[in-house]
Amino acid sequence: MRLSDIGEAGLLQRLHAFCPAELIGDDAAWFCPPAGKELVITTDVLVEGVHFGSSPLSPLPVLTMSAADVGWRAVAANYSDLAAMGAQPLGITVGLGLPPALPVAWVEELYEGMREILKTYGGVIWGGDVVRSPVVSISITAVGWLDQLRIQRSIAQVGDWLVVTGYHGLSRAGLEAIQNQIDAPEITPLITAHRRPWPRLDVVAALQELGIKRAAGMDTSDGLADAVWQICRASQVGAKLRTDMPVHPLLEKRFPQQAEQWLWYGGEDFELVLALAPDAAQRLLEKLGTPAHFLGEVIPGDQVWLGHEPLAPAGGFQHFR
Amino acid sequence: MRLSDIGEAGLLQRLHAFCPAELIGDDAAWFCPPAGKELVITTDVLVEGVHFGSSPLSPLPVLTMSAADVGWRAVAANYSDLAAMGAQPLGITVGLGLPPALPVAWVEELYEGMREILKTYGGVIWGGDVVRSPVVSISITAVGWLDQLRIQRSIAQVGDWLVVTGYHGLSRAGLEAIQNQIDAPEITPLITAHRRPWPRLDVVAALQELGIKRAAGMDTSDGLADAVWQICRASQVGAKLRTDMPVHPLLEKRFPQQAEQWLWYGGEDFELVLALAPDAAQRLLEKLGTPAHFLGEVIPGDQVWLGHEPLAPAGGFQHFR
Repeated sequence: MRLSDIGEAGLLQRLHAFCPAELIGDDAAWFCPPAGKELVITTDVLVEGVHFGSSPLSPLPVLTMSAADVGWRAVAANYSDLAAMGAQPLGITVGLGLPPALPVAWVEELYEGMREILKTYGGVIWGGDVVRSPVVSISITAVGWLDQLRIQRSIAQVGDWLVVTGYHGLSRAGLEAIQNQIDAPEITPLITAHRRPWPRLDVVAALQELGIKRAAGMDTSDGLADAVWQICRASQVGAKLRTDMPVHPLLEKRFPQQAEQWLWYGGEDFELVLALAPDAAQRLLEKLGTPAHFLGEVIPGDQVWLGHEPLAPAGGFQHFR
Repeated sequence: MRLSDIGEAGLLQRLHAFCPAELIGDDAAWFCPPAGKELVITTDVLVEGVHFGSSPLSPLPVLTMSAADVGWRAVAANYSDLAAMGAQPLGITVGLGLPPALPVAWVEELYEGMREILKTYGGVIWGGDVVRSPVVSISITAVGWLDQLRIQRSIAQVGDWLVVTGYHGLSRAGLEAIQNQIDAPEITPLITAHRRPWPRLDVVAALQELGIKRAAGMDTSDGLADAVWQICRASQVGAKLRTDMPVHPLLEKRFPQQAEQWLWYGGEDFELVLALAPDAAQRLLEKLGTPAHFLGEVIPGDQVWLGHEPLAPAGGFQHFR
């Protein structure tokens, strides 16, 4: 059964099952934000053939993930942005562009994936819009709320420690494995990192619990090197990074040639890089445990050093080029 | 100059001019909602070739509007949804899918159109996302706040008067004029209705000023007949509509054959249909003046009558068919 068989009204009826019953049937959704709290809002767009290949209409030679994975990942990207601000999620809206020949089951599975991640991390689907489009596109907007802490890129200080919440390069390695159809059970953690990234909302909770009052930071969706550079530029500081970065054993074993490059420039690992006062950094590292690790120190200047070598900022993905 | 010449980073730099300076440079935007108020959120997606033809890459034979019109219209559709809930706007996020061959100037003009309508009705651009896509798509999410009144479709009562806030069929007539390249100055009001619809946020303000406590309703983006039917179905009531509906003189003069059809099924006029207690309806009609008008009465049953004939619910646009 394709979308053209049931039409817009038929599709909307099926999608209503994924929204709270009291929100169905009006032009927009309403919600009560926690009184007196600041809110955070973010939007991410995914396009088939650019960000993923999944549906039977994909222009890519290899399907990189299931519809449920696409749904999970689309929400995860937004929730990672919320985590990068220090926010906890309230809900999302979903704007879909869909070709009429798309199977209805694909769209329902997409929503199943969104429901799974919302069940894990909180938040509801408030509503959205579905329209005809020659290509599958998914635009998700997430809203979250801030408690005592607002993480910003621009507030790193000289003397801060840089902390990173997990390994890097796994998502890129997972994509490589999928594209080359390497399918061994031992490779699963890499593929899962690509298809089901975890937004680090647990880190926000940890910062709150520890009573940490200032944190600079951002997520590593565009790569670890990019995140460090963005924080340094926004805060007008430099950084000196350790040269013995922990590498995930699977990455080292299966992709020894590319491990270093992907660690810094792979992107889409959705971890957080934070700049914190050294004592706060130590307490956070203890609380999070492995694989969170010390990344380096914030220093005066405008350069990011990997030991005695400058770390190149670019190498990540740029749209339109 | 095309997007491929300046890349994602270059485009983002230019678009920052349209956002409040304090929000630039983080993973998401933050805002302070009015304390203790409910919020409303809505998302609308527009796709080139489906909703408009405007850019040099449009697949449509006739360009129906400028980039600035597209920007205005995309925000207007969302703001109309806010008005349909009784909300006043706070801000928007913008998710864009853009082909690399698109001129940079087109995107900047799109943002100019958004800036114009935000200046007129309030709200800021909080941020968003720009990604590569084979087709231009624009997904806007708007957030507004509710004061004392929450308009819902499902709360019309038998005995209510149905009120409509303006003429209908103008947008559809404007599209016809554009597609047939009828270009006379006297046709301008129709073309403007299509390209620069006004979200009826003024009606929300009028309802507040009059202290009206209950209003059922929705906007007429999918046509006047559809709006009446949706309200009746959601409220489990019927309606008896007047047979002498006011028709805009230009519509009657230029499109006498189609006027009746477009009035009920043309769509995209972005007016409001409201069901109110008769005294509240009278006071609202007095306050709004022409062209707001009485539309009919809410009656028991499950049928919408135009005089003694049933009014067909369908006839409007449905995606995927």
